Amino acid sequence: MRQLKLTLHYDGTNYRGWQVQAEGTTIQGLLQETVQRITGEAVTVIGAGRTDAGVHALAQVASFTTASAHLPEVFLNALNALLPDDIRVMGVAEVAASFHPRFSALRKSYLYFVSSGRIISPFLHRYAWKLHAGLDLAAMRKALEAILGTHDFSSFRGSGCGAKTTIRTILAASIERTDTMPFLSNRLDGTYFAFRIEGDAFLRHMVRNLVGTLVEIGKGKMDADALSAVLEAKDRTKAGPTAPARGLFLERIVYQEDAENITPDCR
Amino acid sequence: MRQLKLTLHYDGTNYRGWQVQAEGTTIQGLLQETVQRITGEAVTVIGAGRTDAGVHALAQVASFTTASAHLPEVFLNALNALLPDDIRVMGVAEVAASFHPRFSALRKSYLYFVSSGRIISPFLHRYAWKLHAGLDLAAMRKALEAILGTHDFSSFRGSGCGAKTTIRTILAASIERTDTMPFLSNRLDGTYFAFRIEGDAFLRHMVRNLVGTLVEIGKGKMDADALSAVLEAKDRTKAGPTAPARGLFLERIVYQEDAENITPDCR
Repeated sequence: MRQLKLTLHYDGTNYRGWQVQAEGTTIQGLLQETVQRITGEAVTVIGAGRTDAGVHALAQVASFTTASAHLPEVFLNALNALLPDDIRVMGVAEVAASFHPRFSALRKSYLYFVSSGRIISPFLHRYAWKLHAGLDLAAMRKALEAILGTHDFSSFRGSGCGAKTTIRTILAASIERTDTMPFLSNRLDGTYFAFRIEGDAFLRHMVRNLVGTLVEIGKGKMDADALSAVLEAKDRTKAGPTAPARGLFLERIVYQEDAENITPDCR
Repeated sequence: MRQLKLTLHYDGTNYRGWQVQAEGTTIQGLLQETVQRITGEAVTVIGAGRTDAGVHALAQVASFTTASAHLPEVFLNALNALLPDDIRVMGVAEVAASFHPRFSALRKSYLYFVSSGRIISPFLHRYAWKLHAGLDLAAMRKALEAILGTHDFSSFRGSGCGAKTTIRTILAASIERTDTMPFLSNRLDGTYFAFRIEGDAFLRHMVRNLVGTLVEIGKGKMDADALSAVLEAKDRTKAGPTAPARGLFLERIVYQEDAENITPDCR
């Protein structure tokens, strides 16, 4: 048996999220069906990040085990031929049996786009949260400092989160005005903010709850100093609302050594 | 009665095109219903370009006549509040009664994106025609010269085109490798081509038929010199296939004087 690692881009708009659900089309479900069409085997495709319905990915990592002898290149072409256009496999590599997309990850980063512009482009509405007012960037940046490092993120944990511990480490966090999206544009109109949060791992809805709280601070509805107290409260009701899924992108996942790959990624 | 001019951006993916059809949602139909919700009047919204199903617009121009005294600003906000996110009104201005979105237009330009990359991004698949091979840019550019100026474009006229004359003037045409889309990106992967064709007016499917023929030339399936003969034949069967709708954008419409506006565009 071999383990194959997939690197995926997807527009999550039309899906019920990563994880197989009782009803609705999911990205994991589609991948499993598609691998089965190629190899005839029923497989479980494990993902690094269980993105919610409507959340996008710029570099999701997933893997499955197969008895098939097809070259990674063959899987790359066959998967892209059979999957819908809004899910693309960007790379396939054979990896050691010890590799696990989620547990082997050292850190992950998420990007979140917010627009405070009056009109959001019809080509970008799937990819940003549209606000009706400007945001105080300095206040949001000040608040961001409180989440750096290791904390109990209970206050930012979504309902239905099954994680055993709520302790997580935020390695880097930034908020910038942006005129570009990494997959898109240099012609944004100056009203976009990019929130980037990198950590060892994340609780369910944690990034969206952090962004929702930072936006409350940006709007002046919550004080910049309040974030520490929200963390200490370990109470979800003390934090801000959950930011909508559409603005969120799983951006990057870093592994100890991509040298763990048995074959180089074919692209 | 006042005439109001709208400038519109839209992602045409989910629509049956501009013009009201017996079945299916159209952009004209949605605009008419939305104006009626605002003013109570049944109106006809006239568009400058009757874009096909799946074709996008970066600056469609449309107008309607109303007895309403609402300021242009009020229409801008109300229309954007009521229309779906993939249709945005970018400007509203009051114009002279003599203005007609189509007949007053001096020229229009269309953009068409083609990708010869192996994998097209899930964020861009709605906006480009994916080819399976590279294109000979020099051959396509050479062929492009034949369409400049005034010609009978019968060979590039789609079925169902009701135009009285098939004589049209192409004012400018270019094909460039591009790393940007005007509403999007500086991170394309070097496999994209942008076709830009500007003319006084266009027949049904004319741009898509020209692009389809140029791509045949780019693939080496048709000679670069053949385009003149195709024009002279005045026979649709001599030209190449119709390029898919998804890659096409109505880019810009130029009027004699935007000074014809009674009020400046509110944005």
